[in-house]
Amino acid sequence: MIRFESDYLEGALPEIMERLNGTNYEQTAGYGVDPYCESAREKIKAECKAPDADVHFLVGGTQANLTVIAAALRVHQGVLAAESAHIAVHETGSIEATGHKVLTLESADGKINAEQIKEYVRCHREDESFEHTVQPAMVYISQPTETGTVYSLPELEEISAVCRKEGLILFADGARLGCALACEGTPELCDLARLCDVFYIGGTKHGALFGEAVVITNAMIKKDFRYVIKQRGGMFAKGRLLGLQFDTFFTDGLYYEVGRREVALARKLDAAFKAKGIRMYYDSPTNQLFPVLNEKQCAYFAENYAYSTIKKLGTETVVRFCTSWATTEENADRLIADIERL
Amino acid sequence: MIRFESDYLEGALPEIMERLNGTNYEQTAGYGVDPYCESAREKIKAECKAPDADVHFLVGGTQANLTVIAAALRVHQGVLAAESAHIAVHETGSIEATGHKVLTLESADGKINAEQIKEYVRCHREDESFEHTVQPAMVYISQPTETGTVYSLPELEEISAVCRKEGLILFADGARLGCALACEGTPELCDLARLCDVFYIGGTKHGALFGEAVVITNAMIKKDFRYVIKQRGGMFAKGRLLGLQFDTFFTDGLYYEVGRREVALARKLDAAFKAKGIRMYYDSPTNQLFPVLNEKQCAYFAENYAYSTIKKLGTETVVRFCTSWATTEENADRLIADIERL
Amino acid sequence: MIRFESDYLEGALPEIMERLNGTNYEQTAGYGVDPYCESAREKIKAECKAPDADVHFLVGGTQANLTVIAAALRVHQGVLAAESAHIAVHETGSIEATGHKVLTLESADGKINAEQIKEYVRCHREDESFEHTVQPAMVYISQPTETGTVYSLPELEEISAVCRKEGLILFADGARLGCALACEGTPELCDLARLCDVFYIGGTKHGALFGEAVVITNAMIKKDFRYVIKQRGGMFAKGRLLGLQFDTFFTDGLYYEVGRREVALARKLDAAFKAKGIRMYYDSPTNQLFPVLNEKQCAYFAENYAYSTIKKLGTETVVRFCTSWATTEENADRLIADIERL
Amino acid sequence: MIRFESDYLEGALPEIMERLNGTNYEQTAGYGVDPYCESAREKIKAECKAPDADVHFLVGGTQANLTVIAAALRVHQGVLAAESAHIAVHETGSIEATGHKVLTLESADGKINAEQIKEYVRCHREDESFEHTVQPAMVYISQPTETGTVYSLPELEEISAVCRKEGLILFADGARLGCALACEGTPELCDLARLCDVFYIGGTKHGALFGEAVVITNAMIKKDFRYVIKQRGGMFAKGRLLGLQFDTFFTDGLYYEVGRREVALARKLDAAFKAKGIRMYYDSPTNQLFPVLNEKQCAYFAENYAYSTIKKLGTETVVRFCTSWATTEENADRLIADIERL
Repeated sequence: MIRFESDYLEGALPEIMERLNGTNYEQTAGYGVDPYCESAREKIKAECKAPDADVHFLVGGTQANLTVIAAALRVHQGVLAAESAHIAVHETGSIEATGHKVLTLESADGKINAEQIKEYVRCHREDESFEHTVQPAMVYISQPTETGTVYSLPELEEISAVCRKEGLILFADGARLGCALACEGTPELCDLARLCDVFYIGGTKHGALFGEAVVITNAMIKKDFRYVIKQRGGMFAKGRLLGLQFDTFFTDGLYYEVGRREVALARKLDAAFKAKGIRMYYDSPTNQLFPVLNEKQCAYFAENYAYSTIKKLGTETVVRFCTSWATTEENADRLIADIERL
Repeated sequence: MIRFESDYLEGALPEIMERLNGTNYEQTAGYGVDPYCESAREKIKAECKAPDADVHFLVGGTQANLTVIAAALRVHQGVLAAESAHIAVHETGSIEATGHKVLTLESADGKINAEQIKEYVRCHREDESFEHTVQPAMVYISQPTETGTVYSLPELEEISAVCRKEGLILFADGARLGCALACEGTPELCDLARLCDVFYIGGTKHGALFGEAVVITNAMIKKDFRYVIKQRGGMFAKGRLLGLQFDTFFTDGLYYEVGRREVALARKLDAAFKAKGIRMYYDSPTNQLFPVLNEKQCAYFAENYAYSTIKKLGTETVVRFCTSWATTEENADRLIADIERL
Repeated sequence: MIRFESDYLEGALPEIMERLNGTNYEQTAGYGVDPYCESAREKIKAECKAPDADVHFLVGGTQANLTVIAAALRVHQGVLAAESAHIAVHETGSIEATGHKVLTLESADGKINAEQIKEYVRCHREDESFEHTVQPAMVYISQPTETGTVYSLPELEEISAVCRKEGLILFADGARLGCALACEGTPELCDLARLCDVFYIGGTKHGALFGEAVVITNAMIKKDFRYVIKQRGGMFAKGRLLGLQFDTFFTDGLYYEVGRREVALARKLDAAFKAKGIRMYYDSPTNQLFPVLNEKQCAYFAENYAYSTIKKLGTETVVRFCTSWATTEENADRLIADIERL
Repeated sequence: MIRFESDYLEGALPEIMERLNGTNYEQTAGYGVDPYCESAREKIKAECKAPDADVHFLVGGTQANLTVIAAALRVHQGVLAAESAHIAVHETGSIEATGHKVLTLESADGKINAEQIKEYVRCHREDESFEHTVQPAMVYISQPTETGTVYSLPELEEISAVCRKEGLILFADGARLGCALACEGTPELCDLARLCDVFYIGGTKHGALFGEAVVITNAMIKKDFRYVIKQRGGMFAKGRLLGLQFDTFFTDGLYYEVGRREVALARKLDAAFKAKGIRMYYDSPTNQLFPVLNEKQCAYFAENYAYSTIKKLGTETVVRFCTSWATTEENADRLIADIERL
């Protein structure tokens, strides 16, 4: 059984394991104020061309989302997001548990656009009973989205412009950011730092054992952020483990290299599926593929491969195959051969 | 200017004012344990044919909704409701502020049905990642709905049956319950007590100065409910004021009489509008009417009447005219004459 | 049985009932934007010499406390208060339910002082692990306190000075403010407005049917406060009932007159107890008296009077007798005669 | 500089690093349902002699505390704990952020006893205004406590008996449980499982990279616990990393061995300090020592050692030296030699 159902099935990149092993007996202070965290912070700020940014390391994505949102919003404020956004559907109401409503916008492909945001804010402003409704105060986007699609640089610039005009905080969830960075025409880290108030660089799904790096440029969110990390259970005792991993990611461009590799393998799989007439449900240029399979095809692949089931479309099924940092050329080629043999 | 924009524009029924005036200097214990509250409780339980129910008096509807939901749900649970439900759109995220997500179901007329609930629960149960999503644990309906429509007794029986089968709590918001009770074929108080776990009997929009009577039949919600009332700011110091009002409502059938009067006047207005070819946006048999007016008609009525603006439909506007306990025959007739004169 | 156990046993001042009766059939907009609320606001701002203050009317004290605190604090912040503060002990954890910790300071008489606040902030600042502890961000005082004592103007000035120096919000709970205003040397309304960021003027315990007027001078708390009122269930539909009551309070000095009367009667009772050698547990110059009674005395008074039991001291008991707006000279004299007859 | 200030300064036990390295490229399902988690669960249940217990793996202690408490309590309930409890002072109000109050009990040594709990419950029950106060519903103890002291088996049995009698949930925080297990007369894992409703076995401070194993025997808390883990940000994607670590801990008694080693080294240091006339502020038989040093001694040790500063006592200072899984005999002996040389 070769598993393609997600990108967090294995341990970590060899470069990361080596760093952890090599520093195992060193003594450092806890809670993220050690030299490895400091070094990782400096490298990330340099990549972001954001010397004044604050960088914090958290263990996971849901934790990052809820911590950022709890820190940023006042009690009557909500966060605009695509109806398919991770915070809207797959975090067990973690945002509501912080007291805030997720205000969803329709989306066919996981993305939202500047026009939708502008319209929502206009409606809120013009509503006679606006104080009886949740005040939109933040926009949450995922780059790439949960369905593998990406925002182009111009799209992000438009969203950012609306947010600044309307006084909305822009937050980008980058759980799989490494793959978006590997795509053509997408914002780079320095664009994200320039256009967003806060975003995070995902490690867990990109070859770290665990970890996400939250980058904050908005002064209000920066203030006292470590208190909120601690309060929400995210102040990691052996913080240097997070620093070491991100320091490794941003040494010799490893973070980018992993993304390019994942995307390149995904492109090969994508081409193989399409060559067999299998269509993709979402138009993803990243490491997640969403082929639509009939029952026979489902059974055929299930013999040797693990994949995720996304949804039923009559007798067809939308499934997900992911490449990861650990996907070998050999395994990808085996799958391609099996696709061709269909 | 005669105001028809809502049903909470005036003070209170003369019968209620008389009781408050007549008892003003009496001394009673605070916090809802006085003889007037006791008497009102007994009358409500008798009307509900629910001798074991608990009855609590709260000041307002949002307060009742958030207190009931906070008391009833565990942290990972959410409440199913129509997308137009008051708790979903017009309470500034009060439910999310208690930590719970409102899980919305599509609805054209403000109602949801047993099938939708069953389907939602099935999807949740069959989802591989169900633990990553909010667990549906309660169904919230409004009787009548925010758009003036009503659930028939069979409809409520079906919803109740699904809720019991699936282990969901059924909660009915009765902010305008008095009008629903005055409609043909709707559940009576004893049906609500039999079919719901908890519901409330609205006073504020039905001729009380203020106040809602929460009726609880579910043992888990009953337990310690007064702690939750106090915690959420709803433990009214001079509790007897609430008791006195509901005691008056359920003396000589006043509560029902007010509903019949409001509905009868609304029927007359409804007929007048329709006779002029003005259509209703929602099919409301209760005290709220939603005529669709063109620009000229809007201006015409605005000269002498206050009404609410609900939404724009191109050049037309959906507006709301309400009758209330205080609407006089004279004012209703004046409006009818002006409709006819259009 | 004559009841002295609290000051919310009766209805409302005749002046208030008269206003409610006289305006009962008027139609006004809901939710606190009617002319009566506007008039009451203007009068309160004039009394406070605070033309830029915002004034909001809420139904009760716990509601006022939790709404103000939810609006004012970020998630990692807490509120300093005396260990005997109402929010610390008698609101069923309502502040914790908004997510905030009440940080208690020792107090023998219900008051805290500037030095304690300064010291707490200093300890927090110097703590290596300060981010692992709740950040003190607000000071809550009650004027008068729960034990009937009052802050003098110089004491409040000192507390205010520390708060401004340390960036703490100062919030005064004035549930019984009318009695404090009637005492010698205490801050006037204009002092409270000048020295606090937010405070409230209590109506429920001072002869209103219900209602508290929140006065906000701090710009951050002012912003969007009505959203928070709605979210927490405090947006009263028939808002004009609150406006009418406070408008009446601040017409011809009624609010002050009620306080003076309550306090004067309390002084007479205090003197009578002391003349009999009965000591007071707290040194209250306001309408609450805390005599320490032995078992025989308890039984003696219990025959004809209701009082509250505060705590046991061996065989003695601290009890509470309150005067209220409705206490008659006749009833006070009867109690005095019974004290003398002991 | 040799660091003794805490027990989370280094990476992880070599046995753990070996397991992580050896399994790095294996593919397993995420979120804690892999074979390594399963194996670890079985081992822990066997150690606890609790075949029906549920075992969940979380990343850190604050996260474990807030997740357990959020899952277990209804909104009006609070948790009794020593005033020095970690949840009361060092988690930035994480429990309050879940909406619950920490109800503190006085404690000189970090422990609370059955009598205090019984008395608190009695007072609550007899309070006329009990519904205006937080309902005590859980008891939180730390084993060992934050000050290094331990509960004996009889002490835990008494606390458990009171909790069962009064319907309180008993929760033991075992962040450093390994050290308590190594002490004479303390409860074993099977005692904890028998006497508590829920407790956790700490890994982070005992030689894991990170991780705590929550053991639940109470059916109500078991139900749906994974939803709450996800909601609070604790559902670790690469869950097998947690399973692998705890599987290693409970292979060949490694968890116990680490505790014995840490405690043995601490005993040697303790004896050396005392031989020099340096007294201990807390009477800790575990791996944390709290010597009281004068200024000269502080400076003397600061030259070559890192230690924590706990509090000032006039000119003296209470400091903390910890041994850990990684403390070498050599470093301990060097410190002892320096103590002797004082």
